[in-house]
Amino acid sequence: MRISYRDVKAEILNRIRSNTWPLGTNLPGEIELAKEFGCARATMNRAMRDLVDDGILERKRKAGTKVKQSPVRQAQFSISIVREEVEQAGSVYSYSLIERELIPAPAWLRERIKVAKDAPILHLKCMHYSGKNPYQFEDRWINLDVVPAAREFDFEDVGPNEWLIQQIPFSTGELVFSATNAPESIARFLKAPVDTALFSVERTTWLEDKSVTYAQLYFARDHKMTTYI
Amino acid sequence: MRISYRDVKAEILNRIRSNTWPLGTNLPGEIELAKEFGCARATMNRAMRDLVDDGILERKRKAGTKVKQSPVRQAQFSISIVREEVEQAGSVYSYSLIERELIPAPAWLRERIKVAKDAPILHLKCMHYSGKNPYQFEDRWINLDVVPAAREFDFEDVGPNEWLIQQIPFSTGELVFSATNAPESIARFLKAPVDTALFSVERTTWLEDKSVTYAQLYFARDHKMTTYI
Repeated sequence: MRISYRDVKAEILNRIRSNTWPLGTNLPGEIELAKEFGCARATMNRAMRDLVDDGILERKRKAGTKVKQSPVRQAQFSISIVREEVEQAGSVYSYSLIERELIPAPAWLRERIKVAKDAPILHLKCMHYSGKNPYQFEDRWINLDVVPAAREFDFEDVGPNEWLIQQIPFSTGELVFSATNAPESIARFLKAPVDTALFSVERTTWLEDKSVTYAQLYFARDHKMTTYI
Repeated sequence: MRISYRDVKAEILNRIRSNTWPLGTNLPGEIELAKEFGCARATMNRAMRDLVDDGILERKRKAGTKVKQSPVRQAQFSISIVREEVEQAGSVYSYSLIERELIPAPAWLRERIKVAKDAPILHLKCMHYSGKNPYQFEDRWINLDVVPAAREFDFEDVGPNEWLIQQIPFSTGELVFSATNAPESIARFLKAPVDTALFSVERTTWLEDKSVTYAQLYFARDHKMTTYI
């Protein structure tokens, strides 16, 4: 019976699972293994390549192939446009501005983003909806030194998230995930009881050494953010 | 006066910020720009390379250089070992097992991870501490078909997170972030009032087409998870 590369993969995985080949084990060479498994070398090669692609095995130039240890993976994260998030979920997006004010940056914000003490900063509060349901409450600060055009923009019809992404690039972003018991001022807009656990993301972006914007986003109750690694 | 590549970078960023060069703009060629800026071509090249590395500009083989549009970034996410998280924060890690049971997988779990209807699954509840403070409550399910060695392991001294990472590789992982109002059964271990908003991560991992494990992790109140993009 001809042994397929799928059989070979399954047997390699069996040996890893059963601890015959614990994590970090250096595997025998391809030729030797093909002999042991009774398969063609090309079959062994295909199976091992597949397992390298899957992140199970790892190839070192001189050291041969080994079973990979404590994997660190990349997750795709975008500074996403909330409109697209909602629309991709098959729902109708809408937006409304709650408040827009030009004020001197408060001290806690000046510790977080670099702005001059008396420089006015643009503060916006807005709501994003998915169909008729609240989707996200956005509390946004924009550094007018870096984004002077925001001073003239009214944000009545287009939200700061969408506007900024089309307006200005960023070089570094920080994302902070946490949970917050909804205060009354936010619960009201998200139509949730006070103290409901809300999933929250703080986003700070920089353009080189200058802070562009800081936003705290509160998602409606039961929101889940999924990513794959 | 000799123009430095830093001056050139600053001027390019100015033009982007002021919308002279909006996102997506194709820039003139390097030679032409160097002439306009009155700098050496090598200086312009260095400035542009830097801005490409920073994710502000983007080079297309034939189309030249343009101002990058709606950036999607990679964030590093590991299936981290909770011990290392705590120790890296400069604290002393400790662990305790709350409960260990071998039971048939409940229906909701069978919808999430592929296990046979009457196959026993290992269910563990444990606590992780940072110094004297609760750090994380772990509710863990292990597929014994894939990880048979877990059946014999008592998990009294080593937690499933640490043990699994040393034991078995995975090919895909799903991470789901959300917020939960702490139920009494968890609040008690995290020393938080009932209904405190807890940041929670659900982690499911697969080895090829088999589910390895599903865990729901509840972090102590006010926990923040930070990542950079």
